[in-house]
Amino acid sequence: MNNPDYIKNAAGRMVPVMVNGKPQVEFKGVNKYRPDGNKYAPPIPSSNNYPSDGDKRVPSLKEALKKSGLKNGMCISTHHHFRNGDLLANQIFDVAHELGVKDLVWFPSASFPCHEYLIKYLEDGTIHHIEGSMNGPLGRFTSEGKMKGLGVLRSHGGRYQAVQDGDIHIDIAVIGAGSADPFGNANGLSGPSASGLLGFAFADSQYADRVIVATDNMVDFPCIPWQIHGNYVDFTVEMDRIGDPEQIISGTTRITRSPDRLFLAELTARFCEEAGIIKDGFSFQSGAGGTSLAVGEYFRKIMREKQIKARFARGGSNTYLVSMLEEGLVEFILDGQTFDLEGVRSMRENPSHVWTSPFTSYNHHSKGNFAGMVDVVILGATEIDLDFNANVVTHSDGYLLHGVGGWQNCLFSKTVILPVPLFRDRIPVIREKVTTLCGPGEMIDVVVTERGIAINPLRKDLLDKVKGSGLPLTSIEELWKEAEKICGKPESLEHGDKPVAVVKWVDGTLLDTVWEVK
Amino acid sequence: MNNPDYIKNAAGRMVPVMVNGKPQVEFKGVNKYRPDGNKYAPPIPSSNNYPSDGDKRVPSLKEALKKSGLKNGMCISTHHHFRNGDLLANQIFDVAHELGVKDLVWFPSASFPCHEYLIKYLEDGTIHHIEGSMNGPLGRFTSEGKMKGLGVLRSHGGRYQAVQDGDIHIDIAVIGAGSADPFGNANGLSGPSASGLLGFAFADSQYADRVIVATDNMVDFPCIPWQIHGNYVDFTVEMDRIGDPEQIISGTTRITRSPDRLFLAELTARFCEEAGIIKDGFSFQSGAGGTSLAVGEYFRKIMREKQIKARFARGGSNTYLVSMLEEGLVEFILDGQTFDLEGVRSMRENPSHVWTSPFTSYNHHSKGNFAGMVDVVILGATEIDLDFNANVVTHSDGYLLHGVGGWQNCLFSKTVILPVPLFRDRIPVIREKVTTLCGPGEMIDVVVTERGIAINPLRKDLLDKVKGSGLPLTSIEELWKEAEKICGKPESLEHGDKPVAVVKWVDGTLLDTVWEVK
Repeated sequence: MNNPDYIKNAAGRMVPVMVNGKPQVEFKGVNKYRPDGNKYAPPIPSSNNYPSDGDKRVPSLKEALKKSGLKNGMCISTHHHFRNGDLLANQIFDVAHELGVKDLVWFPSASFPCHEYLIKYLEDGTIHHIEGSMNGPLGRFTSEGKMKGLGVLRSHGGRYQAVQDGDIHIDIAVIGAGSADPFGNANGLSGPSASGLLGFAFADSQYADRVIVATDNMVDFPCIPWQIHGNYVDFTVEMDRIGDPEQIISGTTRITRSPDRLFLAELTARFCEEAGIIKDGFSFQSGAGGTSLAVGEYFRKIMREKQIKARFARGGSNTYLVSMLEEGLVEFILDGQTFDLEGVRSMRENPSHVWTSPFTSYNHHSKGNFAGMVDVVILGATEIDLDFNANVVTHSDGYLLHGVGGWQNCLFSKTVILPVPLFRDRIPVIREKVTTLCGPGEMIDVVVTERGIAINPLRKDLLDKVKGSGLPLTSIEELWKEAEKICGKPESLEHGDKPVAVVKWVDGTLLDTVWEVK
Repeated sequence: MNNPDYIKNAAGRMVPVMVNGKPQVEFKGVNKYRPDGNKYAPPIPSSNNYPSDGDKRVPSLKEALKKSGLKNGMCISTHHHFRNGDLLANQIFDVAHELGVKDLVWFPSASFPCHEYLIKYLEDGTIHHIEGSMNGPLGRFTSEGKMKGLGVLRSHGGRYQAVQDGDIHIDIAVIGAGSADPFGNANGLSGPSASGLLGFAFADSQYADRVIVATDNMVDFPCIPWQIHGNYVDFTVEMDRIGDPEQIISGTTRITRSPDRLFLAELTARFCEEAGIIKDGFSFQSGAGGTSLAVGEYFRKIMREKQIKARFARGGSNTYLVSMLEEGLVEFILDGQTFDLEGVRSMRENPSHVWTSPFTSYNHHSKGNFAGMVDVVILGATEIDLDFNANVVTHSDGYLLHGVGGWQNCLFSKTVILPVPLFRDRIPVIREKVTTLCGPGEMIDVVVTERGIAINPLRKDLLDKVKGSGLPLTSIEELWKEAEKICGKPESLEHGDKPVAVVKWVDGTLLDTVWEVK
């Protein structure tokens, strides 16, 4: 491919030089790109222009959007703390459609199956494109080349970075909040649509031109604690319902019962124990998937036996992690999102269950962030290749079905472990080359499969530590061969020539392109 | 005076067109100035340049200052949460002096008598000038025309505004913290130098080029809660002592025993009762002075009798306000600074004792702030004139002896009451014209003296409410006449031609000039 519209980046991937009309910087390598210039500077507001008694209420979301100056081509942001129970994003675009507004950019912190509803607005031109995760139905729609603009996938930290640095300019942020006061102070801790925290909306509140806070639990000033500062808010709206509590709770928060996955989890925990990672004062983060949860339970067992405790665990939180906090096995939970009502309750009641934001946890363009301080993270992947590169957004058939989430950011942890099955539905997970590059292999330390554990040769220290431990050590090449032996050599995927989305690295550079599925 | 270097502002005061080489905007009237342009945008940092394990410790303050690139002409900021127990600011300039650095601007959020030590550095050119309050000895030094540059007095909110808008650029912020972790997360809640909160350093952390956190209580990551985000911090320093706990506690936090002042306080509380201000769900703020504290106690009595509670009180907090919170008479304290150890304890333990910052409470260049939501504030003044204009920074002899603090910001409250004696040391407080204008008369509603209460004629609503109440109502003119009858007509002050400081209004415009004392 020798097309002036593309450039080969430091990972050898072809990425477009322009995305949705904006010039791009290609991935330069891990920790290689050094930003210049200054952060985005919002216009200076004046209290003169806001009600002196602090009451910013307007009667409806429509009114708030109109007062915010909603018009063609604007960028509208939302957060995903309501997950699949979000009742707000769809209504925003209903209003836009009703008002005849076109070519909007939707900039969610993540999308969910409930947002399949928006496909009609992608089709009729109300929404031009989405910058954010395009999970499930929206991903399929995108992969089939049907979205007018190019999708832009960012990590949670990358989203903060993009807003902070002005890579994207939010015209109107709509922030659904479990509780809020008329001034706009808001939190997710209580009310019928409590979602725990609002960290994913923090950047939006700071940097958007207009900020709308919508709630179904309007309380008198002051709404305490304020996770969102009313001082950044233009309008507040009281609505009947902003979220469906049953769907706010994620479906992925049960420990796996699959013996295969339990085995993976146990092997992962054993690895951590043998490698000396589980020690007094250590820290860990494991995701919300069934296997990750199971890893946490094995950690608990080891910690009880050894009578040690963790200084902190990074959430997503859920009933399991909360019980470790309450048992005293974990001193602090530094939480980015609560996955169940126990998480919400704990965060509301326990000062050691701390709410964070992508700014504190993940923003690469800060003076450091929390990610690098975590001793070990347990993450998933759709594919891993011989260079330990990993993919989390596309499947091997090329379909874009997942978002990046905090995954890229977590790669900065001291030890990154990916427990994955060797294959899924007879499709190898360990492959010669990943379909889409989301995480450079140099950042991925250990791959745990049911057929053995491969340690990245760059981590000689880890290799030394577990030598002679009795763990089933192998190499990534062996795993790859075994996968192909069992599943057969996968057909190489021929993608279309048209890009449908790009994957950004944590520093805003372009890591890879997602192509149309033929 | 027809000097091109000065301009007459909307309050009729002559103010310089340039201050320390920077062009100024003159005061345009309350809520008249509309800022254009954008906030200050700090350079984009990258985590690449910070230790991946988050440990930003350097061995000494000197090392931190050197690594921060300390050099001639820089602006160094500090906060005043340690009040007269601050052991940090003087050390910073000791280092600067040792390194031969000259012409620094010191930008404290307030200065105290302990900073008299810095006069030698003002004299030898280490410090060029101070932007911030110049209390006591520093004020006297300034008033005598000895400071090289012009002092710039700002309210707490105006200081946030100035930093946010780029009116002042902080090169290095040094933030003393009761507790901190090696990453720079910090709070004032615990440790030997606990000062309660760090809100006055919030702007500095967000906008300074380099941020140093110094503590005498370094804890393991994470320092919870983080009032200062480590993500904004460049270097952390562990020091032996950063504050003198006995001096951190303000000396002004005892209820007055003076019968005259108690009478003033009682009259003020009675006025609030008669005017219908003290009702269920109301809010109030009274300062840390003896009279203000006494007002709070009278409020308590009325609230108990009427069985009502306040929705919130704004602090400065102290043992009296905390006891009202704990008694259930106040639902929330929204606190800007703790004045005693009870305040610190309550803030540490009670989630309803909330730490704020000048950003949330006072910044005029936000989308609103808390000041306008407070039903009544009780404030002091050195002088009040026939137009209800008030002065808080100079005495009638022209000496600059106090800072503005949050005083100007509090004028945005729904009702502003100044309980003052008619005269002090036979010098009238009620005067024809204030020496220095700090608060425009249209914002000051009620003046309470031992000889009667004067209500600003602009507040017809208040006049109506207290008609026939039996309160000793009078007019400001009558008070003025009575003061002159008792004290004699004060000689008019002839100030020198040289400006020594300027007083900014909350929007960054120039409200008045402080002149050299002849």
